[in-house]
Amino acid sequence: MKTALASKSKQISISPDDPFVIIGERINPTRRKSLLESLAASKFDVALEDARKQIAAGAHVLDVNAGVPGGDEPNLLAGLTRAITSEFDVPLCFDSANPAALEAALAIYEGKALINSTTGESRMLEVVLPLAAKYRAAVIGVITDEQGIPATPQARLGVARKIVQRAADYGLPEQDIVIDCLALTVSADSNAGRITLDTMQLVRQELGLNLSLGASNVSFGLPDRKTINAAYLALGIARGLTAAITDPTIPELAGMIRACDLLMGHDEYAIRWIKAYRAAQKAAANA
Amino acid sequence: MKTALASKSKQISISPDDPFVIIGERINPTRRKSLLESLAASKFDVALEDARKQIAAGAHVLDVNAGVPGGDEPNLLAGLTRAITSEFDVPLCFDSANPAALEAALAIYEGKALINSTTGESRMLEVVLPLAAKYRAAVIGVITDEQGIPATPQARLGVARKIVQRAADYGLPEQDIVIDCLALTVSADSNAGRITLDTMQLVRQELGLNLSLGASNVSFGLPDRKTINAAYLALGIARGLTAAITDPTIPELAGMIRACDLLMGHDEYAIRWIKAYRAAQKAAANA
Repeated sequence: MKTALASKSKQISISPDDPFVIIGERINPTRRKSLLESLAASKFDVALEDARKQIAAGAHVLDVNAGVPGGDEPNLLAGLTRAITSEFDVPLCFDSANPAALEAALAIYEGKALINSTTGESRMLEVVLPLAAKYRAAVIGVITDEQGIPATPQARLGVARKIVQRAADYGLPEQDIVIDCLALTVSADSNAGRITLDTMQLVRQELGLNLSLGASNVSFGLPDRKTINAAYLALGIARGLTAAITDPTIPELAGMIRACDLLMGHDEYAIRWIKAYRAAQKAAANA
Repeated sequence: MKTALASKSKQISISPDDPFVIIGERINPTRRKSLLESLAASKFDVALEDARKQIAAGAHVLDVNAGVPGGDEPNLLAGLTRAITSEFDVPLCFDSANPAALEAALAIYEGKALINSTTGESRMLEVVLPLAAKYRAAVIGVITDEQGIPATPQARLGVARKIVQRAADYGLPEQDIVIDCLALTVSADSNAGRITLDTMQLVRQELGLNLSLGASNVSFGLPDRKTINAAYLALGIARGLTAAITDPTIPELAGMIRACDLLMGHDEYAIRWIKAYRAAQKAAANA
């Protein structure tokens, strides 16, 4: 099953038979002061620089979040979308809990976007799925519902099943649903990482859906987060993870994803691996 | 299923419910000139220093290979075993294709050793399995037979099945067989990594056996081998890999394994993770 995304002229396919899809996470003002301040002033220069850097570092899709406290989110998200698409030809992932903001961005976007996200809660599904259907976007479905996050992989599978069923009710095909199995913090619960991995395998096996992950939560509160996050990406990829919302400008994460592509058979003759190595060597020599 | 190994007083358990088992690979004169020269002169000082360093870096078991061209391997392997066990209380993995050398070491070893290795070839099984049974050792069974390495995971599973069946004929219980699914070089065949991962999952699922891996071949001929090897360990762990013959003195590999232990639920309260981080910080401050 392939999830297709597109910008004006570029297509991206998410599937186990394609290279891992990196959704660049940096255009998000939460915890990023310079981006927050520029967006609050309706300036997009910091965001555009983030876009440029992430694309150069290997991002296939850019997550775009315009959630500024007190800001006019629909207006900001649309402005951000216009600014990015006028400079870069890259599929976007609209990241908002505000339906009006999602619609403002989707309405002006040329291509097939990804919506980040709906949960399995009926009140979310009833708002996000019609939007996705109207603008023919794909949707990230996060495995949580009215009762919170189910404890077992089997119960989480039930939420994924509910999301695709409800999507079908709105005419959204299952390949347009990408499931996020939700990585909780391993420092709070040492089984959190494993349960999510087991859920990935189950959702992949039972429903055949593509999987994405917000890949940074798992290491929250621990030192050397990038090693933990890199390890979790590899563990996830072996269990069927096909995309992640992550920061490709962190060399350890981008390198791990490239290595996994190589080892999963998505880099014939190791061409990308060797090219990236040479580029890194050249950059180091020029530094 | 737990594979138990032991030195004089220390027990090690290989299983998916235990932390990943690191079998230190450094005591092997192939490609290591200083070790080769010292062993050729029947000196064990370099090997003992390798033992010390690997144990300090987290090795749970030490692979011991005394294959010196023109050397008296039975005598050397026994001498090496005596030297190591007189200084260190760590389970050993005897690494030889020479049955006389294996027997010389097994005969003087106090504990439960691991033999590295037999293949699925009848002429190997008929020699190695009786030795394992006689000395109550566990055995690494490498998935290759008279026809070479089977192309598909299903055919490789067949070799694993043959090895455990023949082991049973000699009275060796299945938990004493650890399967090596054999990681071939990904630069020669871009599907090599994936086929081995699929084999791991199948052997684990169908036979429930523990799995080890010589974790360095996969990156042969490519740059930045340690990143590839680290990624492959994580991918393997997600598919059921329970041990690897690797070099824990390479920080990237040891760090990746610790991160996987944490994420697979084998490091409660992240105690080992945090302890290793502090030790590394202290070492860096003292450097």
